[in-house]
This record gives sequence, C-alpha cells and structure tokens, in this order.
Amino acid sequence: MDNDATAVATTALYPSERISRVREAVGKAGLGAVVLTPGFDLRYVTGYPGHLSERLMCLVVPAEGEAFLVAPRLEVPIVRVSPAGSLGVEILGWDETDDPFALVASRLGKVPSVAVADQMWAAMAFRLRDALPGVPLSAAGGVLRTLRMRKSAAEIEALREAGAAIDRVHRLVPQVLKAGRTEAEVGRDLAEAILAEGHVTVDFTIVASGPNGASPHHELSDRVIGRGEPVVVDIGGTMPSGYCSDSTRVYSVGEPPKEFRDYYAVLRAAQKAAVEAVRPGVTPEAVDAAARDVITAAGYGEFFVHRTGHGIGLETHEHPYIVEGNTEPLDAGMAFSIEPGIYPGAHGARIEDIVVCTATGADRMNLTTRDLVVIDG
Amino acid sequence: MDNDATAVATTALYPSERISRVREAVGKAGLGAVVLTPGFDLRYVTGYPGHLSERLMCLVVPAEGEAFLVAPRLEVPIVRVSPAGSLGVEILGWDETDDPFALVASRLGKVPSVAVADQMWAAMAFRLRDALPGVPLSAAGGVLRTLRMRKSAAEIEALREAGAAIDRVHRLVPQVLKAGRTEAEVGRDLAEAILAEGHVTVDFTIVASGPNGASPHHELSDRVIGRGEPVVVDIGGTMPSGYCSDSTRVYSVGEPPKEFRDYYAVLRAAQKAAVEAVRPGVTPEAVDAAARDVITAAGYGEFFVHRTGHGIGLETHEHPYIVEGNTEPLDAGMAFSIEPGIYPGAHGARIEDIVVCTATGADRMNLTTRDLVVIDG
Repeated sequence: MDNDATAVATTALYPSERISRVREAVGKAGLGAVVLTPGFDLRYVTGYPGHLSERLMCLVVPAEGEAFLVAPRLEVPIVRVSPAGSLGVEILGWDETDDPFALVASRLGKVPSVAVADQMWAAMAFRLRDALPGVPLSAAGGVLRTLRMRKSAAEIEALREAGAAIDRVHRLVPQVLKAGRTEAEVGRDLAEAILAEGHVTVDFTIVASGPNGASPHHELSDRVIGRGEPVVVDIGGTMPSGYCSDSTRVYSVGEPPKEFRDYYAVLRAAQKAAVEAVRPGVTPEAVDAAARDVITAAGYGEFFVHRTGHGIGLETHEHPYIVEGNTEPLDAGMAFSIEPGIYPGAHGARIEDIVVCTATGADRMNLTTRDLVVIDG
Repeated sequence: MDNDATAVATTALYPSERISRVREAVGKAGLGAVVLTPGFDLRYVTGYPGHLSERLMCLVVPAEGEAFLVAPRLEVPIVRVSPAGSLGVEILGWDETDDPFALVASRLGKVPSVAVADQMWAAMAFRLRDALPGVPLSAAGGVLRTLRMRKSAAEIEALREAGAAIDRVHRLVPQVLKAGRTEAEVGRDLAEAILAEGHVTVDFTIVASGPNGASPHHELSDRVIGRGEPVVVDIGGTMPSGYCSDSTRVYSVGEPPKEFRDYYAVLRAAQKAAVEAVRPGVTPEAVDAAARDVITAAGYGEFFVHRTGHGIGLETHEHPYIVEGNTEPLDAGMAFSIEPGIYPGAHGARIEDIVVCTATGADRMNLTTRDLVVIDG
C-alpha cells in the first residue's frame, strides 16, 4: 500500500503517539497487554497493516514496559522500512523452526490478562492461550474501539476525500446504467471508475435491479436491467490513506412504478430524520429509531429489515453500529453510515450517506442528490 | 466468485459428500462439532466461501445429528442461491438484534467439545466460548487438514490449470522486464497479465531486483532495474475454480555477475534434488533437507533462510509445510511448493515450482525453464 499517494499526510493520519495511547487504554481496562496481529488495529496503531499469514507477526503493547514487535526473520527487513519500523519499537525476529508464541509469552512475563486483535485467527489465539496457561484471553476490540471510534481531524479529512471520490463515481452512473445492460456489466464499469477516481481497492459494487433490489446484500448478476426498474447502486472502496468510502443511491431507467415513488419519498424522509437526530449524547439506537419510526408510521416497517448503519474508517464496517440495543452515546468525531432501506419484494430502495458526528450535528461526507435519479435510455 | 468460468467442473471440485466426510472426521477426532465461518474451510466443504463480516455466518457440522447453516437474515437469500444452498442443509436466519452465538449453542445442545475454523476471528471464537460455558474450544485445522491436504483428481487438474496460467505469465516476463524500468512498473504489467491469463485475483507480484532479491518477501519498489542485475520474479493468483498458482523464476537483464552464476547453479541442483526426493512416505523435513544439504555442501547454507515450501490449494499457503520438524509423511495427492533460495546480500535467487506427490514421485505443475533467463535490453 502506498500511503504517499493520499492528499492527507500520513504522519497526521498515523501519529506516532498512538502506541502510548493504546498503552494507557490497556492499563485503564485492567489488562496486562494487547497483542495485535496484522490488520486494521495494527494499521491504526502503527500505520502499517502488516502481512497476514500463517507465520505469526504481532505488536505487543503491555500496560507496563516497552512495546515490541514479533516478526518472522525473513520479514524483519520489510517491517524495518515500514511505518512501524520508525516507531522506536524493538523488533524480535523468529526463525522457521522457532515457536513464536513461546517467544511472546517469555518476553511478556507474568501478566494478569491479555487481549488480542478481534480479527486475529482463532488458531493463533488458541496457540497464545496454550503458551500463557492460566492467563485469561479476551478480544481487544473493546479497548481499541474507544480510540478508533473517535476520528481525528486528519481521519475526518481522509473520510471526506473518500466520500468525494465515491460521489464522483455516483455522478458517472447515468452514463453506464442503461436498460438492456446486465448488472454485471454496469458493475464492471463502476469498479473501473472506483479505481480511476482514486481508490486503491474496490470493496464492493452492488447493482441490484428490480426484484434484486429487495435483497439488501445482493451484489451483481447477469440479470438484464429493464426500463422502468429501480436500481440500487451501493459502492465503496479503500483510498490510499487506508480509509473507506460507502454510498448508496437509487436510479431508475425511465419512470419507475407509482408505488415505488410512494415509498421512496418515505425513505428519503426517514434518512433525513436519522441524519438530523445525530449529535453528541444521542444513542445509536435513537438514531436507528428516528429512521425506523418514519418508515413504520408510513406502514412500511416490516420491509426495513436491517440496522440503520455501521461505523466506518479503516474498515467499511466498524464501531459504532447504529442499531437497536446500542446505547453507548455518540460523540464528536464518530463516523458512520445512515442507510435505511425499504424492500417490499418487487423492488427495493436504500439511501446511504457517511456522516461524522460534530459538536452540534452531522457532517455529511456524501453530497450527491438523494432524490431518485431518473435516467433516460 | 464465478465458479462456472473454470474448465474444471465445480461439482467435481466441490462434491456434495464433503459434509459427510467432515462429520466422519469430527467423530474420529472425538469432537462434538466443527463451526466454520466464511473462508477457505467453508469453501472446501460447501463450494461457497461465504461472506466474512462482523455478522456471524457459519456452517455447523456436529458429529451426531444434522449439519446446519447460520446466516444473518438479510443474507439468507444469497446463501440459498449459492452452492451451499443446494446441499440440503437447514439455513437458520437471525435478525439484527438476535444473539447468533446463543442460537448456535442452543441448536448444538450438549457437546463435549467444539473446534472452529482456524481463521475464525478471535472475537467470534471468544463469543462462542462464552455461549458454551465449560465446552473446550480448539482449532479445526487439524481435522480439516487431513481432508484438504489430499487433493482429488479434480483439484489436481485445477492446480494444473493454475500452474499453466502462471507459466504463461512467466513467458511474458522478457517482454516487460527491461533495464531502466522500475520494479513497480514491471509489477503492474505482470498483475495485468495474471488477470489476462485467467486468474480472478492477483495474490502477489514480487519483482525483486539486485539487493532487493536478497529479501525473500520484498514485493515491489520504485527501484530502477539496472543492467547485469538478477531479478527474482515470484507471482501468483487465484483461478475461478478457487485454486491458486505460485511460481518463482529468476531473470537477468544482460549478463549477471560471475558469483551469481555460481550459486544459481547450486540452487538449481538443490531444487532438483528436493523435487526428486518427493514420494509417499517421505517426510516434509527430509524434502527440506534434500534441498538444504546441497546448498550447505556448496558453502551457502547460511544464505538459505527459510523453509523449502508450503502446501497450496484453495490457499496459497496451507498444509503440508516443507520444513524441518514436520515429520508427517507425504501422501499421494499432497500439493506443495519446492522453493529453496540463496540470499547472499548484493542479490539473491529462488526457484519455485508447485508439485503434486504421486504414487511414485512428483508431478510438476510449473513447466517453464528453471535456467536463469537472460534478457536482452
């Protein structure tokens, strides 16, 4: 991954003091240490995602004492030149016939408990458990998430950049979405545009026409798009910064059915109500309810079958989840999607923006029209 | 993923009786059940990799009783039309505010132990542990690997198809590898060729010139390739079948240094010796030693810093690992790389073929020349 290609400075996105903030959070949580294998948590803390494989690589941050990195000997040169190599953290290499879990355990010494990256492979977590007999193991997500959920100014700029990039792709949709083309053909064009507009990876391209629009996680098929059919386009990718985009709009090739127009207007109002409910102190479940109440009042409640949104940052889906039961209040800097949907069966609709909670409300990262876009052709 | 695009029939690659073979293996291992989240194990068993996300999706195969699939309600329609949907396994959908781990536990009932997919997220394994108090949890890899290590005839054909595809890319290298170009430029061309030759994903493109060739896991850089420099090209991708390719060859733009020629000849002989050592009953560590002994005898032992190989199939790296300490004898159908390397510092070299163990020896999946390829220009 090439961090240099982003307009947001890498040093601002991944400040070197993150390790000390993690150490503090580990201590506050009463844990002995966190062990982070390659992935999003590691990238958040060091700027370097690491190389995920069957060979153990991890950053260990103890509550007391110095952090250290463990890496297969043959990857040590790569780690040294990575952003993680400039953090002043000792790098311990291990050879092909060494037991790296024993190395972590012996270096850690006596600890009351250890938390591991949520996405560590279970097989590795079990080997660590066996190398640390009697030490309770848990998921580090709870600790990391207190940090990762509240985005810095640089992170918000990275999300804004990602939002602008996916908005440019949505503006191209009317040029490629035509009756007679298949969803897969349109999806291919959009995938190319996602890369051309500045993303380094295409994370998903949902083009769901007619009845496929009523299956929220339908992706692409060889279904030919017909005239007068609503089409749900939900697309996203990852920017060179590591930060993600995700936005859904609904298009129709020619005029859609009258009953579609009816519930689309309800959905539009529901999405607006949820965005307007966002501010510090409000719970995610209250934001979910703000959208759901509008849809239920209009008689479409049974057709809104998913949560209202998910956090976004280095991952497309992360905390906070905007769902019933989540009562942890929103705070300034939290970034998440607001994406209610209505899926009656013959067709469906979803409108999705990424928003950032500010001191007073919501700052939208996606700015294309939320009206139904009717396309000629 | 579009399984139909492969020349090897999907039904032959992913036969429906795999679930009963897993059930048998679970019983034989004395386990109560295996729980497979989206990934390679799930694809191996059902033909469907599933959708990996924070929402639990899993196939549960108990030693006694019927297997069942658990999926978020909004993904049930997708699972139904996937290869997993035609296995006659009950699909249990869960709603956004349900606890899917409790659902798995209650449906499983009393079990003596549970094994989970090696690559299940640790956070999910911990939630399952908490939903099954007192039930020991372990990694399912040991059980699955007895099945996955021994490839069927259809799987071997899929690996041969993958090998032929990456061989076609290696034959194009002399057209794109030129003095004055950067590693990254050459890598981009090779990535395009990997897709053009039939892969659905580019898994890695290592172009390691001069001193970078001495770092086994170096990938790409903006280093300009010079005349007379050896260049290690290690490339691979995943085919529509789900099966992977991986092959390394060494090129030189113009004549390389004399000392390079010297150790390249040693490496060539070491790789040949290891391939010739392969047959049922021989241990992986003996195959490793076959390569290592040649290199050590010639005085280059300290520069061969990694294992000799790794298994390959749905994953680029899987069992069996060809490494000192692995004494589980080879068997017919096992597929793995043979890739010794010598990395003195100013440059380095590695030669890699995928081979399949047959009743009498090794069947090579990669057939391009293993001589140093000297390129004009």
